[in-house]
Amino acid sequence: VFSPIRWTDGALELLDQTRLPAEEVWLRCETPEQVADAIKRLAVRGAPAIGVAAAYGLALAMRAGRSEPPEERLDQVCELLGDTRPTAVNLHRTLERARRSVAERPGLDHAAVAELLLDLARELHREEDDVDRAIAAYGAALLDSGERVLTHCNTGPLATGGYGTAGGVIQAAWAAGKLREVWVTETRPLLQGSRLTAWELERAGIPFRLVTDASVGTLLARGLVDRVVVGADRIAANGDVANKIGTYPTAVLARRHGVPFYVAAPRSTIDPGTPSGEDVPIEERDPAEVRTVLGVPVAPAAAPASNWAFDVTPHELVSGIVTEVGVLAPPYDEAIARALER
Amino acid sequence: VFSPIRWTDGALELLDQTRLPAEEVWLRCETPEQVADAIKRLAVRGAPAIGVAAAYGLALAMRAGRSEPPEERLDQVCELLGDTRPTAVNLHRTLERARRSVAERPGLDHAAVAELLLDLARELHREEDDVDRAIAAYGAALLDSGERVLTHCNTGPLATGGYGTAGGVIQAAWAAGKLREVWVTETRPLLQGSRLTAWELERAGIPFRLVTDASVGTLLARGLVDRVVVGADRIAANGDVANKIGTYPTAVLARRHGVPFYVAAPRSTIDPGTPSGEDVPIEERDPAEVRTVLGVPVAPAAAPASNWAFDVTPHELVSGIVTEVGVLAPPYDEAIARALER
Repeated sequence: VFSPIRWTDGALELLDQTRLPAEEVWLRCETPEQVADAIKRLAVRGAPAIGVAAAYGLALAMRAGRSEPPEERLDQVCELLGDTRPTAVNLHRTLERARRSVAERPGLDHAAVAELLLDLARELHREEDDVDRAIAAYGAALLDSGERVLTHCNTGPLATGGYGTAGGVIQAAWAAGKLREVWVTETRPLLQGSRLTAWELERAGIPFRLVTDASVGTLLARGLVDRVVVGADRIAANGDVANKIGTYPTAVLARRHGVPFYVAAPRSTIDPGTPSGEDVPIEERDPAEVRTVLGVPVAPAAAPASNWAFDVTPHELVSGIVTEVGVLAPPYDEAIARALER
Repeated sequence: VFSPIRWTDGALELLDQTRLPAEEVWLRCETPEQVADAIKRLAVRGAPAIGVAAAYGLALAMRAGRSEPPEERLDQVCELLGDTRPTAVNLHRTLERARRSVAERPGLDHAAVAELLLDLARELHREEDDVDRAIAAYGAALLDSGERVLTHCNTGPLATGGYGTAGGVIQAAWAAGKLREVWVTETRPLLQGSRLTAWELERAGIPFRLVTDASVGTLLARGLVDRVVVGADRIAANGDVANKIGTYPTAVLARRHGVPFYVAAPRSTIDPGTPSGEDVPIEERDPAEVRTVLGVPVAPAAAPASNWAFDVTPHELVSGIVTEVGVLAPPYDEAIARALER
């Protein structure tokens, strides 16, 4: 099974997603600082994959002969990794789980804590794949035969480290013979759609067509899309969805044209502590990403730009949230509360 | 007054817009074939500017010692220029006007027809600027003080050869002290927003911020836009607007958030022979424009892509159409019929 995250010879290796689709380069990380850097510069991205990579990053933290007590070192590294991407809730959940795990076994030395954290990382990685496969099965079951699915950004194995969320639904639907083709939005500024999703779909032999982000209205108005399936970076307790910028316009247009709009995400993406979309911190990234494309200037060098990474889709535009415990339907506050209890 | 189109020493010079904002290079065209090529590869673009450039292109057609009768040569060159961009109605109108002009004065030799066509081109160029200034004045009068205007694509001097349509409204509003700032969408795939509109606004000292096309929903949802003003490539008799792809999603989002959505365009953009938006031929351009950015690959080399240049905004989403004879309001079929009679 393909995963862009692997543990090899005592270090974390990440498929550098900033180099795709031109080159397949694996980054070797031997310190949590290198992992934090890889997360920050999006060599690894996608909320679930960030969580998995961060878990391995914690395991790396204990390995060199450190003088601080393991708990102190863990706190430092949790802070370092937690600061990389503010919107991704899985990341914070992973760090919390590691802290609890270590707190439950006081008195372990560095090596023992390192082993504990590596086991945890591997477990998280496996869980991610299991969860993805359950999401994919529930999502694929929604599709009718011959559907054309529109997706945004990247939510396949590159995004989760496992089978993929929305990308997993697409793979499972293709495997079930239900999918006619996939519309892939390029997803500026970082082009996760054209660079990563197109690469994944080509690799998997799934028919797709790439469009600019501004083409979504045309696709829907022309009746070329049967269903929208996207991922999520954070889901609020009321079902509002924070996801890659461009998701909200797509949801508005899907509603206008009567096309179902689904969000596929593990329960770990749901944050019961975030009451609604208004409460999600939206990361603003470097304006230079807008002024350039893969490093090539496309605007006057001093042009001011705004670069929000995510937008918020209000729950009333969401037809269903596909999780590993089934498809949640409105009213979402209740469905979410029940799903989290299970 | 700045114009990207000028007649110098017996030839047409065009500011090559494919080289902006990095370089200001003027293309010298001495034949209509060179003008057609410049239009096709978007060295000159924007419906009104294409019309003006084509008019000068016709004048160039008669200059070399040709053997065909002038009318026959004119037919050939009208076909050549008419085939460059199917959606731009001004282009076809210009060619028609030139044909009529020549037909009204039978028996002229090549040199006399060349002079006639050059006079016509200069007149069209002047008219374009006059029309733009009238549009700009009517449009600026709509704004309240301190407004933040969102625009899409490029509709300034680079697009019209004159003062600009939506871009002219922005310039006039700025001159009148009414404008706080302009939100500029980059406008993939060819980045007319980031390359051209940002260049024009920087040059004019008008404050602006650049965003990706997918950011429009966020800007509107956050209440950061007071008014949308865009141009048009063709307006149907019922008020439906064909404009750069991405316009329709912006109109849908503006309506959802109660933000007025205006289209600024000369009457020559209105085609009474096109009953509704469904009847507008929508140009599909080379998919390679989606797979690349300024020639740099951003997707797998063989990735299939769709590349519609325009979309259609239904008239019910349009708050008003700003023309040189005033702001047209619904019902548009009647308002348009009256405006075309004037």
